Amino acid sequence: MRLKPEGTSSGGELALLGQIRQRAGRATGGGVRLGIGDDCALLRLRAGEELAVTTDLSITERHFRLDWHPAEAVGHRALARGLSDLAAMGARPVAAFLSLGLPRELTKAQGRRRPWVTGFLDGLLNLAEAQETPLAGGDLAESPVALADIVLVGAVARGKALLRSGARPGDVLYVTGKLGGAAAGLARLAELAGASGLSERSVGSRALKIPKKFVAELAAHLYPQPRIAQGLWLVRRGLASAAIDLSDGLSTDLAHLCEESGVAAEVDEAALPVHGAASLAQALNGGEDYELLFTAPASTRVPRAIGGVAVTQIGRMVPVRKGRPRVVLVSGRDKQALEPRGWEHFS
Amino acid sequence: MRLKPEGTSSGGELALLGQIRQRAGRATGGGVRLGIGDDCALLRLRAGEELAVTTDLSITERHFRLDWHPAEAVGHRALARGLSDLAAMGARPVAAFLSLGLPRELTKAQGRRRPWVTGFLDGLLNLAEAQETPLAGGDLAESPVALADIVLVGAVARGKALLRSGARPGDVLYVTGKLGGAAAGLARLAELAGASGLSERSVGSRALKIPKKFVAELAAHLYPQPRIAQGLWLVRRGLASAAIDLSDGLSTDLAHLCEESGVAAEVDEAALPVHGAASLAQALNGGEDYELLFTAPASTRVPRAIGGVAVTQIGRMVPVRKGRPRVVLVSGRDKQALEPRGWEHFS
Repeated sequence: MRLKPEGTSSGGELALLGQIRQRAGRATGGGVRLGIGDDCALLRLRAGEELAVTTDLSITERHFRLDWHPAEAVGHRALARGLSDLAAMGARPVAAFLSLGLPRELTKAQGRRRPWVTGFLDGLLNLAEAQETPLAGGDLAESPVALADIVLVGAVARGKALLRSGARPGDVLYVTGKLGGAAAGLARLAELAGASGLSERSVGSRALKIPKKFVAELAAHLYPQPRIAQGLWLVRRGLASAAIDLSDGLSTDLAHLCEESGVAAEVDEAALPVHGAASLAQALNGGEDYELLFTAPASTRVPRAIGGVAVTQIGRMVPVRKGRPRVVLVSGRDKQALEPRGWEHFS
Repeated sequence: MRLKPEGTSSGGELALLGQIRQRAGRATGGGVRLGIGDDCALLRLRAGEELAVTTDLSITERHFRLDWHPAEAVGHRALARGLSDLAAMGARPVAAFLSLGLPRELTKAQGRRRPWVTGFLDGLLNLAEAQETPLAGGDLAESPVALADIVLVGAVARGKALLRSGARPGDVLYVTGKLGGAAAGLARLAELAGASGLSERSVGSRALKIPKKFVAELAAHLYPQPRIAQGLWLVRRGLASAAIDLSDGLSTDLAHLCEESGVAAEVDEAALPVHGAASLAQALNGGEDYELLFTAPASTRVPRAIGGVAVTQIGRMVPVRKGRPRVVLVSGRDKQALEPRGWEHFS
């Protein structure tokens, strides 16, 4: 069933829809001509733009845990994943859509605690507001496990989107922000959960209370910031030859970029902007940092920061050579293969 | 993780992605400038068009059963739901996206039987091909239950989309095709499953073998035909004042249309095109027929068939009057309230 207005029917879905609709507003204005309430949403682009579309599925036990992650963080992270895909193309967000499957108990208040879904929507809609991304529609269903599929529709000037396939030998490799913070945060979260005796089996019955002193350390994991402004800036200036977002981990995402561009890469270990709480392994292979990895010709002047976020030169693109690893990690005089060790499903 | 090309990683997801990508093609051409393989797909509209976007979540035990529904039908039905939303707006399909969550065993061959997901993709992609709707991207994840979120992106001339909100008192109410066939098919399916001793608990272990003599009777339920051509025709001719697709059942969907248009309706029982296998109750309240329900001014000449599908006049729109039910069923001289008894989640 689609997100529909409170109609003549009654029941729990309508109450939840009413809540979403109230919070999302009728979501017209901007690119949204018609939001929640018809068979489809209607969106408009500006002249000369094309569409960028991405979907990201988040499932409990796989992308989040009800006993570890605050509901607000689950909502934030679900939307951040999709926004980060738009950022990697240099697209501006036009609208988001949410398909939400929930066990019934997550839609109901538990004693004094408000329903889980209310926290989830808070986290999602706060980020949507900050990134000027109206929630324009979606779907709801009862589900044995909590899951959220987020769809982002963005717009970018025709032919100007940042692709994975544009890197050339000689290009310089850059990354925004810090690396490994999300993986370090997740490790800390697991440690806190272990100490408080939580397990997969206590799902939904209670959520981990995060001690104040760890809130900042966990932020990179719980509330990652998609680099929309940075992607837009790169497109506007026409600086980048290729880009990808770091969702699965540097080693894996860089391999994807190399594969699509038909090039190889060298990464300078000493140059990596490793997050203060993270290990080198977390910086190389930890996913979900949602920073941008991009390339630019060596002749291009790339600033040290874009929109307040640091930009670091971490290596270079080189020709593919038979017998040489696709991605090499350079540590002083030592060179070794950097195998993709990021996250993959069904492996 | 997004649908990505076979890259440097290895594992089950890539094999499945390879299969999807091979079947979907690189899906460029038409409105798809860049399909599976980057952070987002890139789509282009024609001049003067706006976008129609819809998402539909299908979850096992809720929208389909692994022990009742052939895998091909699950794939077909998931896509048909989304296409039907586009049809209801009069939009042409531009691209589909699929977020697929599957238990691992559904991605693997079971003895001599091919993997469930192969049948699912067959059903989905056959309909996609028939409706000229390229699969341009999506997401994959392992999931404890099988689920598919389908996103449809369509295009319609600016300001010309069929809305739920345009019906006026005096308009005539029309429906395409037959009503209740899907509900009758589902009832038959349940009967066949009961007779063969299947239960919810046998999920995935074996699928119901449908006897040949029931294939035609079950078609309305297993392989509904979204009315894309009929929706496009209505927009092209500018005939309809409002439209909705029959996903939840005539009584519920007509109530939505009335609500959004601020009108009431009278339905003539004798005029209803009840499916040969269906009861009146199934025609009124059975969902998933995916026919179009639309209104047009009484002065408009609406043909008896559009694109080979019958169009039947089933009632009229009337002003809302206090104390009178929103929707009334007229049977000879008798008038009674037609309460929305279609399908609703979380109720």
